Amino acid sequence: MLIVQKYGGTSMGDCERIRNVAQRVAKAKAQGNNLVVVVSAMSGETDRLISFAQSFTPLPNTKEMDMLLSSGERITAALLAIALESLGIKAISLSGRGAGIITDTFHTKARIAYIDTTKIFQLLNEGYVVVVAGFQGISTDGEVTTLGRGGSDLSAVALAGALNATCCEIYSDVDGIYTTDPRLVKQAKKLDKISYDEMLELASMGAKVLLNRSVELAKKLNVKLLCASSFTQDKGTLITKEEDIMEKPIVSGVALDKNQARVSLSDVQDRPGIAADIFGLLADNNINVDMIVQTIGRDGRTDIDFTIPKTEVSLTQQVLEGFKNDFGSIEYDNNIAKVSIVGVGMKSHTGVASTAFKALALDNINIMMISTSEIKISMIINAEFAQKAVEKLHSVYKLEQ
Amino acid sequence: MLIVQKYGGTSMGDCERIRNVAQRVAKAKAQGNNLVVVVSAMSGETDRLISFAQSFTPLPNTKEMDMLLSSGERITAALLAIALESLGIKAISLSGRGAGIITDTFHTKARIAYIDTTKIFQLLNEGYVVVVAGFQGISTDGEVTTLGRGGSDLSAVALAGALNATCCEIYSDVDGIYTTDPRLVKQAKKLDKISYDEMLELASMGAKVLLNRSVELAKKLNVKLLCASSFTQDKGTLITKEEDIMEKPIVSGVALDKNQARVSLSDVQDRPGIAADIFGLLADNNINVDMIVQTIGRDGRTDIDFTIPKTEVSLTQQVLEGFKNDFGSIEYDNNIAKVSIVGVGMKSHTGVASTAFKALALDNINIMMISTSEIKISMIINAEFAQKAVEKLHSVYKLEQ
Repeated sequence: MLIVQKYGGTSMGDCERIRNVAQRVAKAKAQGNNLVVVVSAMSGETDRLISFAQSFTPLPNTKEMDMLLSSGERITAALLAIALESLGIKAISLSGRGAGIITDTFHTKARIAYIDTTKIFQLLNEGYVVVVAGFQGISTDGEVTTLGRGGSDLSAVALAGALNATCCEIYSDVDGIYTTDPRLVKQAKKLDKISYDEMLELASMGAKVLLNRSVELAKKLNVKLLCASSFTQDKGTLITKEEDIMEKPIVSGVALDKNQARVSLSDVQDRPGIAADIFGLLADNNINVDMIVQTIGRDGRTDIDFTIPKTEVSLTQQVLEGFKNDFGSIEYDNNIAKVSIVGVGMKSHTGVASTAFKALALDNINIMMISTSEIKISMIINAEFAQKAVEKLHSVYKLEQ
Repeated sequence: MLIVQKYGGTSMGDCERIRNVAQRVAKAKAQGNNLVVVVSAMSGETDRLISFAQSFTPLPNTKEMDMLLSSGERITAALLAIALESLGIKAISLSGRGAGIITDTFHTKARIAYIDTTKIFQLLNEGYVVVVAGFQGISTDGEVTTLGRGGSDLSAVALAGALNATCCEIYSDVDGIYTTDPRLVKQAKKLDKISYDEMLELASMGAKVLLNRSVELAKKLNVKLLCASSFTQDKGTLITKEEDIMEKPIVSGVALDKNQARVSLSDVQDRPGIAADIFGLLADNNINVDMIVQTIGRDGRTDIDFTIPKTEVSLTQQVLEGFKNDFGSIEYDNNIAKVSIVGVGMKSHTGVASTAFKALALDNINIMMISTSEIKISMIINAEFAQKAVEKLHSVYKLEQ
């Protein structure tokens, strides 16, 4: 089998940990697999380099930042290749350029355009374990680029797709995907399998194992992702397509997001295009609106509620200043939490939502906003009830089993 | 004027020092010069990376070492470009590859084959200060290589030659070349100018500013070298060809080398080829023989004295074991010092050597071995007289003036 493994910054944090990774790679190689190993920089290294650059100017040239930041993964890639050779494993490290990862020219947030796999396939045929510096590529102009936050995961997923690997294994200090944040609910249970779509919806869950960007790419390229810890032998969680999951749970997990604020516009003039105007201008200001609920208009007036990141409240206030004649009153509420239940089984089951509403009602938790998608139900509640609501929902859908 | 500047690891040691370098570069740019700036890694960084690699194996793969070690200069190059931009200077960093520095394929000790200057000239024409990561290039196979010890100096000299720069300025924490080591003789005086050949002969002097490899290349490419400190505004020492030095001093400096040991072979069979046999085998064992003195043979026997690095004494003993029937006795002396006087004026002046011998004799310092070249006289004396001999010679040739 051809397997792409990716080790995060904590897993590559020092020479002892790199030796541990080398041993894991050696074991997978000994089992007869072909291996491409993508590595992150040592934890803290990228932040250290950024702070160096920002000591000169708050907004350093992005092309220079890419030259600077791409060095961290080159270091860990070379060190892992050396560690593998010390175990008697034939290994070679490649930079993003060497690995044939071609990107667009948007420095510090480049997107992978395509991967020229010639060299990697050649090295695999020669029996090498190929270690690739993650997070980086080479632009169509021939300049070093980096892929932005979570970039090494993206490198791994894209390589797994291009190489048609059997699996892309993402190793970090988190041992898998849980039914909910184990720090909140100690009955939280690790999932064996989860679908791409559920994973995307659960992304806001406490344990941020994977950014949506990587899951989306995996889904698009049909790459099986395994999330596991490099510090244990536990088998982790497989993220795959829905069809590969035999027994589809109605609810797979409960997610909590405490970083949202609620904005309530009352008595909004119910003219065509008013919502488009408001949300268009918010988007122009890069304010990421999450949930939007609009009630049916009466007497030419309507109410619009939506949520935004707490950090964007003051910018939103400025933007909405221009609309103040269009609505009666406006209310901001920082003291909210968004609780979501996610599960592909919802599609074919009825009564999932009402079970949730009933459960919260029994505990006297008031639901301020509701939005639903095919596989997710999100509810905005008062922040003080967040913990209680997550526990209740986790229990009512029997996720501890 | 087109100037190549090179800043060493101490000059680039932290962000504050990089800012200082940026200000110096900005000043030279403001004076209307075109600038290519070659940088070393932050002091200590290369050793740190080597120790990481050696924690896995004492002899890491050299190709991986080059991937690893080349990152340090990429970091400082990017940081200097960012620092320059923060001062309003248009700047861009280039890796060895980007700068077109093509080397052979001997990893960790590659030699520069040629430099493709197209890109640098294009960037200079566009008004950029071009910052180049020193110490590295790209092999004819397209792999990253490094140039070995003193490699950033070599990058700078080679670039200055290829670009036909007016001068190559080497900045470090040493402010120039002195008549002798100022730690030994406090009257030591900084030289304004010195010829390549004198510099080569003085290389063993206490202040190791430049490795001979770089001086030799500068001589070959006819590149004027300026050695100065990045921490002061003093003008440093210009290393140039002899013809450019109007007033040729008889003696430019006094050098001391305490790292040699003396080997004395007595009663050597005076057959043709005996010296070739002995020194050939020492060379095969990578033993760097420095001075060799052979007395005229009498009765088919002769004496051969030579010096080797102290660290090679035991290896030399092993090698000479095979010749023990060819000579009467052998003596090893670790307690010696080599004192040399260097000056291009010697060529045209007589009595320079006898002045030295007389001066030492007056102080009752016994000279064990003497060897002379066109511009250098070296004497082996007992180590306990080293300091006294250097002071005496410095004074007798009036170098303090």
